[in-house]
Amino acid sequence: MLSMRTLGELGEFDLIARIERLARKQALPGVRLGIGDDAAVLRARKGEDTLVSTDSLVEGVHFRWRNQSPQRVGQRALIANLSDLAAMGARPRAFTFSLAAPPSLPVARVDGLVRGLLREAERWNCPLVGGNVTRSRTTSIDLTVIGAVLAGTALRRQDLRVGDRLCVTGTLGGAALATALAERPGGRLRRLAEPRLAAGQALRRLPGHGGCIDVSDGLLADLSHLLRASGCGAVIDPDALPRPPGFEAACARAGCDPQRLVWTGGEDYELLFSVRSSAPGVRELARRFRVPVTEIGRTISGSGIRGIPGGGRRRGWTHF
Amino acid sequence: MLSMRTLGELGEFDLIARIERLARKQALPGVRLGIGDDAAVLRARKGEDTLVSTDSLVEGVHFRWRNQSPQRVGQRALIANLSDLAAMGARPRAFTFSLAAPPSLPVARVDGLVRGLLREAERWNCPLVGGNVTRSRTTSIDLTVIGAVLAGTALRRQDLRVGDRLCVTGTLGGAALATALAERPGGRLRRLAEPRLAAGQALRRLPGHGGCIDVSDGLLADLSHLLRASGCGAVIDPDALPRPPGFEAACARAGCDPQRLVWTGGEDYELLFSVRSSAPGVRELARRFRVPVTEIGRTISGSGIRGIPGGGRRRGWTHF
Repeated sequence: MLSMRTLGELGEFDLIARIERLARKQALPGVRLGIGDDAAVLRARKGEDTLVSTDSLVEGVHFRWRNQSPQRVGQRALIANLSDLAAMGARPRAFTFSLAAPPSLPVARVDGLVRGLLREAERWNCPLVGGNVTRSRTTSIDLTVIGAVLAGTALRRQDLRVGDRLCVTGTLGGAALATALAERPGGRLRRLAEPRLAAGQALRRLPGHGGCIDVSDGLLADLSHLLRASGCGAVIDPDALPRPPGFEAACARAGCDPQRLVWTGGEDYELLFSVRSSAPGVRELARRFRVPVTEIGRTISGSGIRGIPGGGRRRGWTHF
Repeated sequence: MLSMRTLGELGEFDLIARIERLARKQALPGVRLGIGDDAAVLRARKGEDTLVSTDSLVEGVHFRWRNQSPQRVGQRALIANLSDLAAMGARPRAFTFSLAAPPSLPVARVDGLVRGLLREAERWNCPLVGGNVTRSRTTSIDLTVIGAVLAGTALRRQDLRVGDRLCVTGTLGGAALATALAERPGGRLRRLAEPRLAAGQALRRLPGHGGCIDVSDGLLADLSHLLRASGCGAVIDPDALPRPPGFEAACARAGCDPQRLVWTGGEDYELLFSVRSSAPGVRELARRFRVPVTEIGRTISGSGIRGIPGGGRRRGWTHF
């Protein structure tokens, strides 16, 4: 039977104890001290740099309870964060989970949320080691992931050079299309995107790699970040942008513009990166990354993006 | 002239750029990559463990804009987090700042908030290296601090032993009294508490130290955490609890029960810790910690706290 208890009835310390209990089965490699103290303690390895990245999901902005299961909300939250580590070529170490929620929130939702987090955590070897719970009018989930990378080798946004080949893993627009389809009667959400952790680490080891970012806000927004950080421009071949199989037909059914979804759809969590012209071709990259890789254009001197259909109005997800 | 622009008018990327600009003057020792990429990169030092701790301030729960300046809100947020590192005997390395706020929030408030964060960040050598901004109905501030400690030496809650002497730095109840006084007509908030970073590090190096926690939720709640983690009980001498000078008279003016404030008042951020009976006396501890230290009781076998005036009803700040 589903517990209909609320957070208000459970109380803060019992809520924390409940999360601890759910998290107790985790493997904790490299964790000296996990949940339950003032801070978590991670064993540092010689010659490694420590990475920190943080992200939030807010109810009504990034998710709605009635659209998807609490478990799925938790999975999405951790995937978004791990994707940032993937974009730096890093290995996950651990994460913290902060929950702000109204006292009326059913405990069953928190349980689902935590199970979703722990499911992805286990899959990607990234144990939950701490966090915080607090009362708020709006439910929001704040995660911070800690990663590690061989000292001095993290992939950065600023490392594009003029003449680089621009590439992307997987396909673009699928997550946005799935969201559009799910909002129609009888629609269902598709399988979640995966953080490209193995691909990021392989790219980091690739001689001749350039800069990298994950596509969380849409190609246009994230490519703009890359170009601005590196001080160059880009020419994109719009016909080369990789789409999921059956994309055009599904877009027609959903009443969506496929070009718009490919350029501005978020949450695909693919890696957008550059390699020097001398680097291996996309087939060899795909073999090393264990995921399809497509070349979509080149960097040029100057600024801005050439090749946007309809003349380059920037659209993507912004929070204000 | 004060800018009356709102976050909605500024836009997400300009908001991030604004925070980056404010943060640009920071010294960044040990930071390989700060704000502006998918993750921050910290240089790991040989033989060090990495600590992670996270905390949130929610508008209407932990602060109200009309009660205090945005700068003070920012200072309090970072102090609360640094205090967790102090309780582990750690040195701060860096922090991330996540802001969830409604589009109607004036930009001037964010500026004040960030200035407050940066002011404490500079004072305690803990640079801002990343974060996140997002839209929400409620304003909330989520910080994650990263710290470092000589491998294997972090102070823990679980390290009390039966027969330990229980001690506290500074005085208790002052923050709660100041809040009560500030709520009266013409009241003003007093100087902010300080994270006891130097004391925590000195305690960690002390032969014969036991367990440690920071008093953020009140003596009763935090002592209970310590005892539960270590599996023992405590006898406290209520008359020994250190109070600020003039405390009783000020409590009378504010109409507060001094005993209640000393036992349950939060945000003093003093360290509550144990030392073995063979450890140096409080004068020597005070000399090493550079802050007054008071012995308030002893640990005993069993569980629970003896010595609470009025018979031990537990009160403290809980979030649900």
